[in-house]
Amino acid sequence: PLTGESDSVANMMLEEDASDIALLLESLPVEQRLSVWSEVPKHKKIDVLVAMRGDPREVLIDATDNDEWLQLFTDMDAEVLLELADSLPDRLVESALSVMNKQQRKYFQDASLFSDNQIGHWLSHEVLVLPISAKVRDALRLIRRNVPDLTDCIFLVNRAGHFTEAVKLTRVFGAPEHLPLVEISEEYIDVVRVEDDSINASRLVQRSGFSALPAVDSNNTLLGRVDMVTASELVNENYERQVMSSAGMDEDEDLFAPVRKSAQSRAVWLGINLLTAFLASWFIGLFEATLQQVVALAVLMPVVASMGGIAGSQTLTLIVRGLALGQVTKGNRNALLQKELRVGGLNGIIWAIVIGIVASFWFTDPLLGVVIALAILCNIIAAALAGVSLPIILDKLKIDPALSGSVILTTVTDIVGFVAFLGLGTLFLL
Amino acid sequence: PLTGESDSVANMMLEEDASDIALLLESLPVEQRLSVWSEVPKHKKIDVLVAMRGDPREVLIDATDNDEWLQLFTDMDAEVLLELADSLPDRLVESALSVMNKQQRKYFQDASLFSDNQIGHWLSHEVLVLPISAKVRDALRLIRRNVPDLTDCIFLVNRAGHFTEAVKLTRVFGAPEHLPLVEISEEYIDVVRVEDDSINASRLVQRSGFSALPAVDSNNTLLGRVDMVTASELVNENYERQVMSSAGMDEDEDLFAPVRKSAQSRAVWLGINLLTAFLASWFIGLFEATLQQVVALAVLMPVVASMGGIAGSQTLTLIVRGLALGQVTKGNRNALLQKELRVGGLNGIIWAIVIGIVASFWFTDPLLGVVIALAILCNIIAAALAGVSLPIILDKLKIDPALSGSVILTTVTDIVGFVAFLGLGTLFLL
Repeated sequence: PLTGESDSVANMMLEEDASDIALLLESLPVEQRLSVWSEVPKHKKIDVLVAMRGDPREVLIDATDNDEWLQLFTDMDAEVLLELADSLPDRLVESALSVMNKQQRKYFQDASLFSDNQIGHWLSHEVLVLPISAKVRDALRLIRRNVPDLTDCIFLVNRAGHFTEAVKLTRVFGAPEHLPLVEISEEYIDVVRVEDDSINASRLVQRSGFSALPAVDSNNTLLGRVDMVTASELVNENYERQVMSSAGMDEDEDLFAPVRKSAQSRAVWLGINLLTAFLASWFIGLFEATLQQVVALAVLMPVVASMGGIAGSQTLTLIVRGLALGQVTKGNRNALLQKELRVGGLNGIIWAIVIGIVASFWFTDPLLGVVIALAILCNIIAAALAGVSLPIILDKLKIDPALSGSVILTTVTDIVGFVAFLGLGTLFLL
Repeated sequence: PLTGESDSVANMMLEEDASDIALLLESLPVEQRLSVWSEVPKHKKIDVLVAMRGDPREVLIDATDNDEWLQLFTDMDAEVLLELADSLPDRLVESALSVMNKQQRKYFQDASLFSDNQIGHWLSHEVLVLPISAKVRDALRLIRRNVPDLTDCIFLVNRAGHFTEAVKLTRVFGAPEHLPLVEISEEYIDVVRVEDDSINASRLVQRSGFSALPAVDSNNTLLGRVDMVTASELVNENYERQVMSSAGMDEDEDLFAPVRKSAQSRAVWLGINLLTAFLASWFIGLFEATLQQVVALAVLMPVVASMGGIAGSQTLTLIVRGLALGQVTKGNRNALLQKELRVGGLNGIIWAIVIGIVASFWFTDPLLGVVIALAILCNIIAAALAGVSLPIILDKLKIDPALSGSVILTTVTDIVGFVAFLGLGTLFLL
């Protein structure tokens, strides 16, 4: 598909920024990806790798030889290596560390003390810092030297290195040179704690109205900052994880992963699902005798199961989001359960009547209509119950409800649906 | 649940920021929400409403009387009204506009010319602007007056008002007073076009490394800017829409919506799903005679359908994300289809064998094993085909594949699965 476009590719390599090149590479089948990769200018390669997702960049990392790595590793800072570390073989991480300057190596090691879902793992260290006693003229001198991107504040620390105040750069200009900075510091600025959950901390940064927030440890020692770009990347990645994990996939999944690798990573999810499907089948098998006599039950089974599944997944989705945002708490979960049961009851009654009538006419059997109506009502209410309680229970067990919630939920609604429908069928129709 | 906590609530109202109060309100059942709302200090009320999701805030809007609105409307700016407009009755929007100052009213009207998925709808207008001929001393004078939040650049415009350059504030300080600003302007800054898709534009802002990007019309006239906070809100909201719409829900859904309203909004999705379930049942009904004779087919039906559904949803999720990110294009979709068919073929063969063996032993019927194995293979391959082509077709038809993709996909895999399984069963087992 790219034949004859190599001129434009070469041009693009020179002009486009790293994230556009990263996107292009991700969208290419492996062979073409490698040939475009070889045209990426050396000085952009590291930025491009950082901008790519985990799996698609591994192909490129494997194709880069040792000598090239050593060149790429010069002047690498801790943040970049942290970003790439998961995709790099350990031996390359080691050699990157060995050529890294001492300060950056220290940052890397500090960050490695935190898991990647703690914000301490993702700090940046380009921070403007002054002692609490500093004056406007000290600030001006500091600013004239060098201001890192996305910096709108100078952080003031006391002698122990504890964060105390933040001063906006824009308030420094125009202020008298002798004025102590504390007198023009911000009344209020949020602070991120290094052990905090990375997503909660990032959301705080996103809505703070500052370009970056100071990050401190439990003693309030200033360790670095979290800027808007990092915060947005972490939040976006988390959303992608949520979307992908609902289908049992990884957010790093490569569009053009090798067939075998891709098949393997998806096989696990298919296997789990197969177990739940066999479980549902086993329950159906209990009613073989009934099915043989009333074949209409076999025809209508999917209706009962799927209405429960849909109703349940609506409740589940609402609760999973509520848990992630902190809307669902101990204080309101009983009220929520009641409300969802009422919604389920109302929709259950309405759809039970509709489906009951359709089934009665379809198979000219009013009793079959009654059986399916009762089964639908029963399954939609069970779905509401499971939709509220499952994610809350999974969350308590520290299992991500976005990943496993929907499999377990549909297992519940399938089984409840089949047993209710076939059980009632056995009672009323034989 | 909040009994005895009203002291702490009152305290929280004074200390917490608007988004924390918004979250608290969203997590409360309606009655308690209204009572806490009455304790929110007047000067925070508008910010709290803006921070809330659409549905939960409507309850509060309905409970606020006309006189209070008139007070709240004073000094309201265009951005805030745009944010609230969808939740406010038309008559209140009118009265807000009538007390708004002329400039803000103009901004509101300009923004209303764009749909809410165009970035032109979401501009902010607090921009530092100078003519292209301005010198450092002009910039200093401007900065000393007032710098809006999240401003790191002054935008330079020519006489026609066209955007030409951006100058970082931090480069202004320390520069000689007589220096023309163009000499210290940024080499490269991305520009947002007002008619652009709001999500693509916001992603550009998020990764730009600037606190805000200039927004221009097709003539390059500077109309405003898009800052990091707005960009993050739009991107986050879009992800939430994606997650919620996969269950047929709105991202504005209120945890504690009135039962009737909630039941109604979900009923539509249940109804659509019911139609597809009946369609699947109708196909099963074609094989009533077969089912009556080989009841094992009825028992195993869910296995065939669900394996296809899961495999298809994996492909679908990957492609929907790829489309949203721009990874999936005309150039690579054939290659993608081939790859997904290969992955489907491989997993199809593996799981066909596993399921075939299990079914053979379970029902002590090797031929049944062959039938289900072929049906599984067939359905997983169909799932891969549908998983790639469906979202691409829906996207072309301007239908959101995140919303409708999974319903259509499971309809396809259900029908293919049932017809293949029961059809092969009719051929081989009767």
